[in-house]
Amino acid sequence: MRMYDIISKKRDGFALTEEELQYFVNGVTSGEVPDYETSALLMAIYLRGMNADECATLTDLMAHSGDMVDLSAFDDLSADKHSTGGVGDKTTLIVAPIAASLGLKVAKMSGRGLGHTGGTVDKLESIPGYKTTVTSEDFLAQVSSIGVAVVGQSGNLAPADKKLYALRDVTATVSSIPLIASSIMSKKLAAGSKNIVLDVKVGSGAFMKTLEDAEALAKAMVDIGKACGRRVSALITSMDSPLGYAVGNSLEVIEAISVLRGETWGRLRDVSLALAAEMLSLAENIPSDEAYRRAENALDSGAAFAKMKEWVSYQGGDVGFLDNTSLFTEAKFSHDVLSPCDGYVSSIDAEIIGNAAMVLGAGRETKDDVIDLSAGIVLSANVGDRVIRGRWICTLYTNDPSKLADAQRRVLEAYTFSSDAPPLSPIVLKKIQ
Amino acid sequence: MRMYDIISKKRDGFALTEEELQYFVNGVTSGEVPDYETSALLMAIYLRGMNADECATLTDLMAHSGDMVDLSAFDDLSADKHSTGGVGDKTTLIVAPIAASLGLKVAKMSGRGLGHTGGTVDKLESIPGYKTTVTSEDFLAQVSSIGVAVVGQSGNLAPADKKLYALRDVTATVSSIPLIASSIMSKKLAAGSKNIVLDVKVGSGAFMKTLEDAEALAKAMVDIGKACGRRVSALITSMDSPLGYAVGNSLEVIEAISVLRGETWGRLRDVSLALAAEMLSLAENIPSDEAYRRAENALDSGAAFAKMKEWVSYQGGDVGFLDNTSLFTEAKFSHDVLSPCDGYVSSIDAEIIGNAAMVLGAGRETKDDVIDLSAGIVLSANVGDRVIRGRWICTLYTNDPSKLADAQRRVLEAYTFSSDAPPLSPIVLKKIQ
Repeated sequence: MRMYDIISKKRDGFALTEEELQYFVNGVTSGEVPDYETSALLMAIYLRGMNADECATLTDLMAHSGDMVDLSAFDDLSADKHSTGGVGDKTTLIVAPIAASLGLKVAKMSGRGLGHTGGTVDKLESIPGYKTTVTSEDFLAQVSSIGVAVVGQSGNLAPADKKLYALRDVTATVSSIPLIASSIMSKKLAAGSKNIVLDVKVGSGAFMKTLEDAEALAKAMVDIGKACGRRVSALITSMDSPLGYAVGNSLEVIEAISVLRGETWGRLRDVSLALAAEMLSLAENIPSDEAYRRAENALDSGAAFAKMKEWVSYQGGDVGFLDNTSLFTEAKFSHDVLSPCDGYVSSIDAEIIGNAAMVLGAGRETKDDVIDLSAGIVLSANVGDRVIRGRWICTLYTNDPSKLADAQRRVLEAYTFSSDAPPLSPIVLKKIQ
Repeated sequence: MRMYDIISKKRDGFALTEEELQYFVNGVTSGEVPDYETSALLMAIYLRGMNADECATLTDLMAHSGDMVDLSAFDDLSADKHSTGGVGDKTTLIVAPIAASLGLKVAKMSGRGLGHTGGTVDKLESIPGYKTTVTSEDFLAQVSSIGVAVVGQSGNLAPADKKLYALRDVTATVSSIPLIASSIMSKKLAAGSKNIVLDVKVGSGAFMKTLEDAEALAKAMVDIGKACGRRVSALITSMDSPLGYAVGNSLEVIEAISVLRGETWGRLRDVSLALAAEMLSLAENIPSDEAYRRAENALDSGAAFAKMKEWVSYQGGDVGFLDNTSLFTEAKFSHDVLSPCDGYVSSIDAEIIGNAAMVLGAGRETKDDVIDLSAGIVLSANVGDRVIRGRWICTLYTNDPSKLADAQRRVLEAYTFSSDAPPLSPIVLKKIQ
């Protein structure tokens, strides 16, 4: 077999066989296939596409290119969620304890933030003592004991994906649905859960800008997961504006806690319940609405918050911070951004807000940057809220006051206002299964 | 400027600007653009195409990536021809002296053979004493003095093309019309002639298998040449069967001499006259039919043959061989291949014949192979000829008798026969200008 023939075949629009994809993935993993051949094939895949079978086969091979986490001890109860990345998306912090409190086994490996989107591992590190690195034995023992563990990605998960992603990133072949779907799903398959719920973000702050693209990505990922023997569904959720009120690591943990304590309602709570319900619905094969009621009950009863404390405590975190969020270190400098007009907030560009939070220190421009866990933005006026000229619409937090002016300029660019109340769209736009 | 943006732009089907193409060609030439970026762009160009302006700009930049031969001393009389490669194509040996005898200045750099197609430089080296390497001063002085010089490619002509071609060859991006056209024309532009006639081969033995593809390539090359200030036309000529009777280096020289001496007529003579006439027509801006009559006269009067002797002699070759071709060393072994049936030759697959000649020692499988100048095949029965079962249809020549059986098997596979005389198509199928 030769890469030349594999490239030619895809270039001409034909589907690759399992043997051909195996040859490619093995060669990429071992380094025997040179980058120039890989990038030619990636561009051919980008422009010619892949059918569902090909995509599933490629993903399975990429997943098996490294370690496969074995969660078979949890039978059909292991459940994972994955978000395609948004601004202010702290749902994992809410969904994981709800799901675990309902008896699911949430063995979750999360990433760090990059660019305008945050990462769950960074957020959790704002809780003093919380350990994001544990041995795989301890990780599995914790899930077995309390039903939930959230750690940083470790081990050698889907190394073929790591190499392909690095090359896609420099050859303009990232934004291909088969390649995005196989990249995400290879890591999810390797992470071992039987039930996988995907949160596919759509809108100005998301990678997918249109509902059509988001649906295509969701469908591709659901098909891959099913073809590989998992139970998978996807919710398409709006990321036109940031999710919830807080953007920034400790600020988002505080918001998540307030949802779990029943103090904050709204879109963040809604989407978290919907995701947890989907996990339960898949794992127990029950209707979504029944699962939703059970998730809601877990939240309202305090069971989910109790589970969060048990989980944080198990991983060494100081639970006192969960009971009293005023203990979180506040950034040295804060600045209220004032409304330039009377009226309503008609939109808030999520990507611009994410970048403003990054400027304040909450995010990384490159993966080696150190982040400021207390920096970020808290929106007081969200989409649809009434505003009055000269009253604050949001507050900026940072330890570097030289960044406030730039961040304020960005935030004011992100907000748009209208004289009438704007129509509000639902947060969960569609379900793909 | 970033390669990433250039790749994205072409990936999305947009035309690249001169500045972008300049950045790319400079980066390829200097080695600063990594191969994986280049191959991603090449695949995007392969699948998205290039418009005529882009293609001309790319070609001009590739030509200027190295030395540009200066033939301005010859005003508008410098004339070149280029064949896209065929089997038994010895037209340069006939066309160059015809054109020079008509007053044109033929400063020709030719290549060596590879695979099933031969190269003019190899053929000329079968004339004892003929020097294919001369200094550029001597090269120009010879053209100035006698109107013709044919040497091997030397110097640093179109180094960007050399690098791009090497990468295309391993990433399945060779067979793209804009990339083929820019590759060929960059070398032709760098070689300096004002008038360029392209012989675009079409058929089983050619790179372009259909008339439609050949026309598209011809048009692309003519457009590039004109956009870069040259006078260009293209003849599309048939390469379904080998051109003429001989395939192999000294065997082809002998056939070319017999055409120049007026001893052999037919398709080889016809296409040679048509190409020489096109060169004259472009250089003197006269109608093709008038130019054809003058070319024919140069051939029939013996002026072209006299010019060939003058040329070979100037480059150190033994002219005695031209007057008496029996002086050429004959291969030690020859073998007649016999017709398996009565009837007519309906076709002869040129590529298979080219490969059979390579097996006998006449060609190179890789560019470091040493070739046997006396090896090859002489067809006695060509397309349309009557054959009788048990009478020879061609003769194989080699110094390695172990190859005869393999070559015979191939030759018999190349020939097809019919009970009725097949229709004969003209050799020159179309002119593009």
